Amino acid sequence: MIYVVGIGPGERKMMTGEALEAIQNADVIVGYITYIRLIEELIRDKEVVKTGMRKEIDRCQEAVNIAKTGKTVAVISSGDAGIYGMAGLILEILDKEKEPIGVEIVAGVTASIGAAVRLGAPLMHDFCHISLSDLLTPWEVIEKRVKLAAEADFVVCFYNPRSKGRADHLKHALEIMMTYKSPETPIGIVKDVGRKEERKILTTMDEINYEDVNMTTMVIVGNKETYISGDRMITPRGYTL
Amino acid sequence: MIYVVGIGPGERKMMTGEALEAIQNADVIVGYITYIRLIEELIRDKEVVKTGMRKEIDRCQEAVNIAKTGKTVAVISSGDAGIYGMAGLILEILDKEKEPIGVEIVAGVTASIGAAVRLGAPLMHDFCHISLSDLLTPWEVIEKRVKLAAEADFVVCFYNPRSKGRADHLKHALEIMMTYKSPETPIGIVKDVGRKEERKILTTMDEINYEDVNMTTMVIVGNKETYISGDRMITPRGYTL
Repeated sequence: MIYVVGIGPGERKMMTGEALEAIQNADVIVGYITYIRLIEELIRDKEVVKTGMRKEIDRCQEAVNIAKTGKTVAVISSGDAGIYGMAGLILEILDKEKEPIGVEIVAGVTASIGAAVRLGAPLMHDFCHISLSDLLTPWEVIEKRVKLAAEADFVVCFYNPRSKGRADHLKHALEIMMTYKSPETPIGIVKDVGRKEERKILTTMDEINYEDVNMTTMVIVGNKETYISGDRMITPRGYTL
Repeated sequence: MIYVVGIGPGERKMMTGEALEAIQNADVIVGYITYIRLIEELIRDKEVVKTGMRKEIDRCQEAVNIAKTGKTVAVISSGDAGIYGMAGLILEILDKEKEPIGVEIVAGVTASIGAAVRLGAPLMHDFCHISLSDLLTPWEVIEKRVKLAAEADFVVCFYNPRSKGRADHLKHALEIMMTYKSPETPIGIVKDVGRKEERKILTTMDEINYEDVNMTTMVIVGNKETYISGDRMITPRGYTL
């Protein structure tokens, strides 16, 4: 039996009851070392398999191998396991191996929602998620989605917005969006949501400081109606007050 | 003090600890009658203000008025309060009234995520949320977003997909998408996620039965890579197994 569990952005209280329960029911916990650290005190009595970054296939294969021995395994992702997380890969591996192992995907609060509650209410209207990592997706596909999302006036949440190896991806994405968006379009940046280093920045398309953004940052770009009021970013739904 | 709380799709165990805590801390609970019913046993000792459908402004204004008297109010939305929920409206009202009332938005599991875990892993790649309700958004704007989302090959989650008054909106939306998508594109339908009437349907663009869809249904349309395997809908992230 495998639980694929999203533990939310960081804080325990942003986890669902179902996620806590799945972790409690598991014999073995499998996850990326950084996420394992976030739940350390929940898994003191468990067997733990930690792996490093970019070891997703090994990690999921290991989880499947352990489940084959009859143990109950919880595979941990941050945020929601089904959004750029481990859920798809676990299902793909089981599919390929035709293993009749039970799987339960456990819902979590994804990074965009975790960041949005800190910013105010930026996701009140149609929005999309785009990952700016081109490790698994050709950059041309990402560019096309960024362009069309801007043209559609979606609020856009950028996952994996910027890393050392991809220092200019966010800048390129915003340059593409500039054709359709005003330079004053509000942008909300939340670093390390729900962790002790959490930091929130409200800025605009033309004033963003890219140095404020790294891999553990959520960047939310508003639509034409989004505004900043005090320390909050708000996208109106369309009610007339 | 106002908490704006997302209670998730339905089941208690899909709520976050933070949401439970906010409800516990509140003196008064304000919400749409259907959502209030979902958390009845949590709020037996509370003052409760229930209002009917389409009374969003009245409901939020009432919550603000009660908070002005010094009471702690929890405004309840299903799913996440910041996604087509009450968070934006509460902040807009406070903004307009320049009331210095504390507000905390509490994250929840939105309907797309709740449905996705039941379907498998359909949201593993870039996706968007589009509401098909034209009560607050012109239909032309919705049509444009549907077209561009299909062209971008986003996985698309339709909120408010179909009601008696809008019986053909989903059909129109899928017809628009047909220009860019194969008729075999998988569609996942989940009705009443996390409630006792829950039902899951896997189908395709050309075989969907619109009668399976109503207002408490989430409809997820796959991208070019999405496939159905057994009783699961999976969108690969791009790993090579």
